[in-house]
Amino acid sequence: MGREDSKRQIMDATYRALCKHGYSDLSIQRIADEFEKGKSLIYYHYNDKQDLMNSFLDHMMERMEEEDMLKTSRSAEEQFDSLLDKTLAIEDEEMWEFRKALMEIEAQTPHNKELAERFRKIDRVVKDKFEEVLAEMDIERPEAKAELLISTIDGIISRKMGHGTPKDLEKIKEDIKQTFT
Amino acid sequence: MGREDSKRQIMDATYRALCKHGYSDLSIQRIADEFEKGKSLIYYHYNDKQDLMNSFLDHMMERMEEEDMLKTSRSAEEQFDSLLDKTLAIEDEEMWEFRKALMEIEAQTPHNKELAERFRKIDRVVKDKFEEVLAEMDIERPEAKAELLISTIDGIISRKMGHGTPKDLEKIKEDIKQTFT
Repeated sequence: MGREDSKRQIMDATYRALCKHGYSDLSIQRIADEFEKGKSLIYYHYNDKQDLMNSFLDHMMERMEEEDMLKTSRSAEEQFDSLLDKTLAIEDEEMWEFRKALMEIEAQTPHNKELAERFRKIDRVVKDKFEEVLAEMDIERPEAKAELLISTIDGIISRKMGHGTPKDLEKIKEDIKQTFT
Repeated sequence: MGREDSKRQIMDATYRALCKHGYSDLSIQRIADEFEKGKSLIYYHYNDKQDLMNSFLDHMMERMEEEDMLKTSRSAEEQFDSLLDKTLAIEDEEMWEFRKALMEIEAQTPHNKELAERFRKIDRVVKDKFEEVLAEMDIERPEAKAELLISTIDGIISRKMGHGTPKDLEKIKEDIKQTFT
């Protein structure tokens, strides 16, 4: 198994462990439990939990950019829908657990510079993508709209986190489209 | 001093104590420090911190409703601006400290039914006000827009909480107006 293969497997195991245990209760052992090659191979690639989390967020970013390269054939509107689906991917239990874990990691950013940098980068990439797609759709002031839209998405997620009220996600997406485009 | 006067003074003292110490570090003693009549009068009116917080949130609601009764002479657009100013009143230091304290209290709601009920009520009142004003402005689908707008406002505040990036609040308000109305 090549270096890249085992790294990708560790990333997948980290994803599964985050969904199961959240971030505070995450340990290299718990990631190893999701990974058949065992703990020593994880320690061969990563020094500690922080090092692994940095790589995990970098890996998320890379995957977002890879997906981006595949998109060119689609219409701007399809791209908008797909961005919205991804950023509001909270309808199934696993995705929701992952999202909660991400918010836990984000809560560390005020006292963790390395994580903070990565979150800022992911944030900027998402905003830029929305801006690009809104511009392609000939929406006025795409930059301001994109900025507002990521606040709206964050608000929807943190409200769901707070009161857990079940909301009709498809309706929310439709409302967003009608308001922002 | 009448009962209502001393209650109002205690509420004002609670507001100041929340701005200074946040919610977790709030104690009846710290509220008493902001209130010249002393701790015993607070205990005469309230059993404990929970009882006082419940009253404080009720008092916030009442004040929101009082202000509402004064509004009738203003145009719908002025009312929209004023609602936005109030819900995004985060530009001065004291208001921001108060807002952070409110978010701390809200974080208690998953395991505190009495606080949760009050937050739900405040949330509903704010949403209803936005809906009413949007309807008066002849905006299409005011209910959906109001719902989305309170998510946007929450998102703006929690993003500011998270990365603390200074944002031009007047520009944000203008962007909200252009997008939602």
